[in-house]
Amino acid sequence: MSNAKAYSAASATSPLASDTIERRDLTEQDVQIEILFCGVCHSDLHMVRNEWSVAPTVYPIVPGHEIVGRITQVGSAVTKFKPGDLAGVGCMVDSDGTCPQCKAGLEQFCPNMTLTYNSPDKHLDGVTYGGYSDSIVVDQRFVLRVPSNLDLAGVAPLLCAGITTYSPLRHHGVTKGKKVGVVGLGGLGHMGVKFAHALGAHVVVFTTSPDKKEDALRLGADEVVVSRNLDEMQQHVNSFDFILDTVAANHDINAYLNLLRLDGNITLVGAPPKPLEVAAFSLIMGRRNLSGSNIGGIAETQEMLDFCGEHNITADVEVIPIQKVNEAYDRLLKSDVKYRFSIDMASLKSE
Amino acid sequence: MSNAKAYSAASATSPLASDTIERRDLTEQDVQIEILFCGVCHSDLHMVRNEWSVAPTVYPIVPGHEIVGRITQVGSAVTKFKPGDLAGVGCMVDSDGTCPQCKAGLEQFCPNMTLTYNSPDKHLDGVTYGGYSDSIVVDQRFVLRVPSNLDLAGVAPLLCAGITTYSPLRHHGVTKGKKVGVVGLGGLGHMGVKFAHALGAHVVVFTTSPDKKEDALRLGADEVVVSRNLDEMQQHVNSFDFILDTVAANHDINAYLNLLRLDGNITLVGAPPKPLEVAAFSLIMGRRNLSGSNIGGIAETQEMLDFCGEHNITADVEVIPIQKVNEAYDRLLKSDVKYRFSIDMASLKSE
Repeated sequence: MSNAKAYSAASATSPLASDTIERRDLTEQDVQIEILFCGVCHSDLHMVRNEWSVAPTVYPIVPGHEIVGRITQVGSAVTKFKPGDLAGVGCMVDSDGTCPQCKAGLEQFCPNMTLTYNSPDKHLDGVTYGGYSDSIVVDQRFVLRVPSNLDLAGVAPLLCAGITTYSPLRHHGVTKGKKVGVVGLGGLGHMGVKFAHALGAHVVVFTTSPDKKEDALRLGADEVVVSRNLDEMQQHVNSFDFILDTVAANHDINAYLNLLRLDGNITLVGAPPKPLEVAAFSLIMGRRNLSGSNIGGIAETQEMLDFCGEHNITADVEVIPIQKVNEAYDRLLKSDVKYRFSIDMASLKSE
Repeated sequence: MSNAKAYSAASATSPLASDTIERRDLTEQDVQIEILFCGVCHSDLHMVRNEWSVAPTVYPIVPGHEIVGRITQVGSAVTKFKPGDLAGVGCMVDSDGTCPQCKAGLEQFCPNMTLTYNSPDKHLDGVTYGGYSDSIVVDQRFVLRVPSNLDLAGVAPLLCAGITTYSPLRHHGVTKGKKVGVVGLGGLGHMGVKFAHALGAHVVVFTTSPDKKEDALRLGADEVVVSRNLDEMQQHVNSFDFILDTVAANHDINAYLNLLRLDGNITLVGAPPKPLEVAAFSLIMGRRNLSGSNIGGIAETQEMLDFCGEHNITADVEVIPIQKVNEAYDRLLKSDVKYRFSIDMASLKSE
């Protein structure tokens, strides 16, 4: 085993602080990655503060599942990577590889999937530790190739915010000629806009903040609707093929369902704290669909990264040193970031 | 114009009573049908009592959209029918025929569709009058052929309850090898069970009434789950390809969403008075889908009737004279019918 520097939280009410953790010795299928940047996902904050009853937090927790770095060492059977290669790791670091979901390339739905942090560790005691660290050891099957032409600070968020929005757009057939809505312009939403635009769709951003209009257009939106303006909303009734709903706060989903055309679909990638109130008629009229989506499989994550390389897409990030991560969490709660924090892990060397 | 006997309601609080209405003279595309049986749909009751704000009731109202009878007269351009033929009419009697929905055979979603009752009448003043009557005049495009081997009293409900359940099963690819749930065993649910069984699926009925178990098995269910029994529910977690939800009362949709496997779908055909409370995680985990469905197009309704002819499927009905229709409404509110009332229109001759 080797030691790694990390930032961990000791309890639901503790700030993240410098810590030393253990990383396993490489098995023949493992690669070791020097972490260069790690994105800050809203899930990190929920997990650090133990806010999701479906997945209770084990402390200490080292969050971070938007990892990009450089390979420093490879196991004897590793063929996919060599030292010096760029590499990415997202929300998952293992799965059983044998279930129907794994065989279908949908490892995110494997019943034995291991999350990058706070999952039982198959190699060491305790739980997995994530990317707020200077290094990580991961099975090569769960390590992604990173295009060489992209800014690495902006690549990190692709590993969660990117695939979370890319996967439903692809799954629901977003292409040129489709009218696509993106609800909410935060970490997820701004990636949804970039992808839907790059896929050739006509993109409409829904936001509660009129001051985000200009930025939405810059990111690739064709139109911006201020969702509190009922007249503006009414103009889009029965017209959308697909709407990506990235909002994690409570909101009226029927207002958006009614904007879908026949057989249209709204997919949720945000999880509001209260249940959504869905009027049956909103679905029955127009044979509409409300769905969910959860990150994406490894093959699709690679496809997304390759797509980003071709289209020169990265997340818009504010780069921070890890010493500012607690402050970043506070700002995250106020949606005070355009559009994702990316931790420059060089800052960890001074700890 | 000609006179027809009918039962109408004069206001939201009036009982249905004997009345005389006008039917138009036949245009060249019209057929005249002597109505033999008309099913009693829960929508009839809602409309008579003006309970749906989306479609305010115009009085007097003559309900009924599960119509089966015999052609008595045809217009000069009618080729599809001749006098003496059996014929059915469902929820629609006209549409514009030119919109994308009509061209796709989805007339039920045509913005200019005419409902069988309580829709503006394109030929006469006022609104359309439905099937609680001894005759009706309908454009041949909206008249269905009825297989000759079926009991006509049980055919009538196929025109609404039948197509309402058949269409989503077909739309969502229910076939042999699929595990299909049917929630609620009423007028819609019992048809859902018959169709899902005939399509070759493994059918599980969910009911709150343990005493419906035997009947569910008789109708074609392979298993029956008493939905209040959490242990029984738990055994089916993550296992259903498709669930048809026919319940028009408030109920916990998450309990059923959690029974869907990856990419599974629940389709609503009942409309509970209160919005359904949908937990986002119920959809996000398993990439699940919640949809609606609204009757079916004319071509699919014909397909359904032909399917019923081949598989010898009709609704289970309690035949009543029209003089008992108000009593039937009261019993409908208590779900006291197995499983649909079908009015024998011969009873109208004595009025």
